[in-house]
Amino acid sequence: MNIKVIAFDADDTLWVNEPYFRQTEEQFCVLLQQYASVHELERELLKIELANLPLYGYGIKGFILSMIEAAMKITQNTLSIDVVRQIMDLGKQMLNQPIELLDGVEEVLETLKGKYRLVVATKGDLLDQERKLKKSGLNPYFHHIEIMSEKDDANYLKLIKHLDIKPEELLMIGNSLKSDVMPVLNIGGHAVHVPYHITWAHEQIEHSIDNERFKSAVTIKDILAYL
Amino acid sequence: MNIKVIAFDADDTLWVNEPYFRQTEEQFCVLLQQYASVHELERELLKIELANLPLYGYGIKGFILSMIEAAMKITQNTLSIDVVRQIMDLGKQMLNQPIELLDGVEEVLETLKGKYRLVVATKGDLLDQERKLKKSGLNPYFHHIEIMSEKDDANYLKLIKHLDIKPEELLMIGNSLKSDVMPVLNIGGHAVHVPYHITWAHEQIEHSIDNERFKSAVTIKDILAYL
Repeated sequence: MNIKVIAFDADDTLWVNEPYFRQTEEQFCVLLQQYASVHELERELLKIELANLPLYGYGIKGFILSMIEAAMKITQNTLSIDVVRQIMDLGKQMLNQPIELLDGVEEVLETLKGKYRLVVATKGDLLDQERKLKKSGLNPYFHHIEIMSEKDDANYLKLIKHLDIKPEELLMIGNSLKSDVMPVLNIGGHAVHVPYHITWAHEQIEHSIDNERFKSAVTIKDILAYL
Repeated sequence: MNIKVIAFDADDTLWVNEPYFRQTEEQFCVLLQQYASVHELERELLKIELANLPLYGYGIKGFILSMIEAAMKITQNTLSIDVVRQIMDLGKQMLNQPIELLDGVEEVLETLKGKYRLVVATKGDLLDQERKLKKSGLNPYFHHIEIMSEKDDANYLKLIKHLDIKPEELLMIGNSLKSDVMPVLNIGGHAVHVPYHITWAHEQIEHSIDNERFKSAVTIKDILAYL
């Protein structure tokens, strides 16, 4: 391996993220509990989130808009305006959430610092991710942050071009097989999967990967042994 | 001048944007005309947009959320849920808006192509700007698109570092003195102001600029004469 750039996914790789979405979803279900079961509410919300994804993209603002839309649909437009306000407040709370670093992240970055060019490669909203990076205190470890509208083969090829490296000089580390591993392996890069205990339904794939450029880790600290 | 990279602002420099926001704002005022005057509605909306800017950033999704919030405030939470739906529909219409290139843009890009590294440097939402660039057909002219959470000195310095050039090798072209011109001159770059007939209140500054690295143009085609 001749790795030059190590790219880290952000949400649920460097810091806690998905649990905040799940908590908000739980609160959404409480707000609408008189209209449908939790299962139905969650299913309807996910359906609307996925339908809106091409238009809104990833991130909290699109999630807020999808929650409002789902609430209107579920209540057949009899939704009280106070629930809209509460959903918007949930969204603002999410945007203001403190950052909780995952175990071992700082130790890993401290060890790799200066030996590789370290970048953050994430989906979502630029402002929100920049804010989280700043709050995390991890900013000094990273050369820069790359925001990708979708983590697919084409966008990883753009990233490689942008970083001015060959595919095999990239190591991507992240918690999503679908977004952080598969497309990177497809374009010839290296990837380490560091699973997180909660994964959004949209990111879940059933897949066993057999590739010499792939490693599966238990915690982020395991990557030090691979390098 | 030894310009290596020419960076173009996108909205209202390459294509029409602000008029769509103004049209949506007009429709917002019609939806709420029974509650307040157009002047009061516009003032309230702008106030809420600016208050939300640090949290939501630029772009259509934040604008939709701010319109809903303003409507709730103006109606003192007596807003009908149907108006929320109509505001959300206005937002989706904006996101699906066709792209209308401004006069001379293609001619300028065609002339500069191959002679300079051309990039798009814009605020707003990555997915939305990527979509607009794709729809515009201008993608092949540009090396890549840079999304900045805020167009300030610090972010232009990051851009310079990212592009691996000296400040004086950058020429920025855009319609906002505040975002496209002042910070670029501050860090030692060159800037050409190509005014657009409508400017968002937040982007307006009263300023006369006397700087040898600054030029004011009437249309984007004028930049060819400066280079």
